[in-house]
Amino acid sequence: SRNFTIDSIPGDGIGVDVTQVAMECVDAAAALHGFTVSWRIRDWNSDLYVKTGRMMPVDGIEQLSSGDGIYLGAVGTPDVPDDVTLWGLLIPIRREFDQYINLRPMKLLPGVTGAMPGIEDLDIVVVRENVEGEYSQIGGRFGAGTDAEFAVQESVFTKAGISRVARYAAEAAAGRGGTLVSATKSNGIIHTMPFWDEVVARTVAQFAGVTVDKVLIDALAARLVMKPTSVRTIVASNLFGDILSDLVAGVAGSIGIAPSANLNPERRYPSMFEPVHGSAPDIAGKGIANPVGALWAASMMLEHLGEVAAARSLTAAFESTLADGIATPDLGGSATTMEFAKEVRDRLR
Amino acid sequence: SRNFTIDSIPGDGIGVDVTQVAMECVDAAAALHGFTVSWRIRDWNSDLYVKTGRMMPVDGIEQLSSGDGIYLGAVGTPDVPDDVTLWGLLIPIRREFDQYINLRPMKLLPGVTGAMPGIEDLDIVVVRENVEGEYSQIGGRFGAGTDAEFAVQESVFTKAGISRVARYAAEAAAGRGGTLVSATKSNGIIHTMPFWDEVVARTVAQFAGVTVDKVLIDALAARLVMKPTSVRTIVASNLFGDILSDLVAGVAGSIGIAPSANLNPERRYPSMFEPVHGSAPDIAGKGIANPVGALWAASMMLEHLGEVAAARSLTAAFESTLADGIATPDLGGSATTMEFAKEVRDRLR
Ligand SMILES: CC(C)[C@H](C(=O)O)[C@@H](O)C(=O)O
Ligand SMILES: CC(C)[C@H](C(=O)O)[C@@H](O)C(=O)O
Repeated sequence: SRNFTIDSIPGDGIGVDVTQVAMECVDAAAALHGFTVSWRIRDWNSDLYVKTGRMMPVDGIEQLSSGDGIYLGAVGTPDVPDDVTLWGLLIPIRREFDQYINLRPMKLLPGVTGAMPGIEDLDIVVVRENVEGEYSQIGGRFGAGTDAEFAVQESVFTKAGISRVARYAAEAAAGRGGTLVSATKSNGIIHTMPFWDEVVARTVAQFAGVTVDKVLIDALAARLVMKPTSVRTIVASNLFGDILSDLVAGVAGSIGIAPSANLNPERRYPSMFEPVHGSAPDIAGKGIANPVGALWAASMMLEHLGEVAAARSLTAAFESTLADGIATPDLGGSATTMEFAKEVRDRLR
Repeated sequence: SRNFTIDSIPGDGIGVDVTQVAMECVDAAAALHGFTVSWRIRDWNSDLYVKTGRMMPVDGIEQLSSGDGIYLGAVGTPDVPDDVTLWGLLIPIRREFDQYINLRPMKLLPGVTGAMPGIEDLDIVVVRENVEGEYSQIGGRFGAGTDAEFAVQESVFTKAGISRVARYAAEAAAGRGGTLVSATKSNGIIHTMPFWDEVVARTVAQFAGVTVDKVLIDALAARLVMKPTSVRTIVASNLFGDILSDLVAGVAGSIGIAPSANLNPERRYPSMFEPVHGSAPDIAGKGIANPVGALWAASMMLEHLGEVAAARSLTAAFESTLADGIATPDLGGSATTMEFAKEVRDRLR
């Protein structure tokens, strides 16, 4: 019988709250659909950093490489600078496993109030480049402590990197109306963004029936607020995709519901699934964190593993829970994290 | 009697349509308030580029330096790459005249429908750093034409550059409730953004009664959609300020109404005033462009020149025009650019 080994990294804060209940929901869905998940729980988080100076063991990446996937909660604590915790865990995983696609779908969920009226049809997929671009380690400070101090950081965009995300996004757009919105800033960012435009245009030209709608990032942010349903599929650089996906989640009413799949499409390495939200230290451990983002991410993981029926069943279950008016306080409900998850399990078919 | 010399650069597309009528409104306001404006019209635009290979004459900056201010329409045409037109005119003016503050106020104007309900109190000022950061000329391509091709661009943040924008923004925040939202990405952008945070925190600490609310750019984008009235004053880097100001204009219902003041606060050099919108080639010359962004920018220019009464009168006039239901087609009205401007002139007091 089918079994998958998943490394679960609950992380910090509400990452722990949401992954715990979401794993139970995954187990229940697996049981219904005839497979099992072996979870390898990893206590890699900011506490470990405080104790050992590392977010994960020296051979952490190696340990993960034997699994079928990685399920992450959230990372971050007020006690440690965020760039330390993130560049010690999340970003190395994305890079070492060449998870160059960050897929962030969003739609209006039942029972969730969107930010503006008339967006029932909201249905956006952000395809974010996930391993290069504006997030680079090249850079540093000059003249630390002096009045002349400055910091530099190099954005790096490669032809291979842009082509492959454009290809993935073009395929996604082909099944979603054929228009691929490419987020750019070629009027302001002189070296990298005109290059982005060129490579995106050339790549997408190979896909019959897909056209590129090149939109400046500033104008796109405004358009997503004014006409959110006019956009279906977006391809964006690492930073632009980060901003746009949170923006789109805001349009749909909540960051707490948003999922994120960090994919290595060739499946040479494990992919990683996580909610978009952070560790929210202020409500950590109170049992009121919204598990929808984590559940949606889990559903994307099941789909990636080929368990499409189980994925659909999990999504249907949290959607029907929300549709019945059951929700955590952030969405205006009164359910606890565990109560919500129990309702989800009860609705699995 | 008071006279100001203003260099007007109508530029391309609807830049020409809106500056033309806005200059007439400024003249009318000046006449009412006892001063005059001598306009030096500069035909520096994409046509000039096509003819001469330059967006402005070799001594363009020198020509502008003797004036009291610069009034810009919009620049950009489908025939010339945007990075060429912008780095040939707009960006050199911002830099050579050390216009390090880009001030972008936004509120809900009468008669304009915001993107979401309940935002009548919207009142946001974005203080954008305007001469360094992500917009730099350092960078280029490697291996052009090969499969290994890549492009790099260096973001550059200086202590002096961050301090001065933080100072300006702290002063603005002091008069606006005392909270300064600082847009950052210190969890993802390892070299420059933690430095931004440090310098902003240290600078603002010198302002009694002002506190910094450090918000990650992705979360801030979502917050501006979900709780736009929870934010009053934002300080942001060049790129983040660009994105956020368009986003805020979208929340307020229209990019066409948004103004932008590129300030050299020390007044060593002329400052530049422009609408946020682009040249909109599709509607250029049709007489239907919305002049509100240009008028609001003109009002900021009058204020900068010390003509506060005239500035107020101009703002009151376009607000009362809108309040009377008169608007251009983009706002759902049927007025032409000239009809709208005439109504504004008629309402000047
Ligand atoms: C045209 C472009 C270079 C410019 C910018 O990004 O600064 C514009 O978007 C603006 O906001 O003034
Ligand atoms: C935590 C941070 C580094 C990360 C990112 O920007 O990639 C997060 O915002 C995300 O979107 O996954």
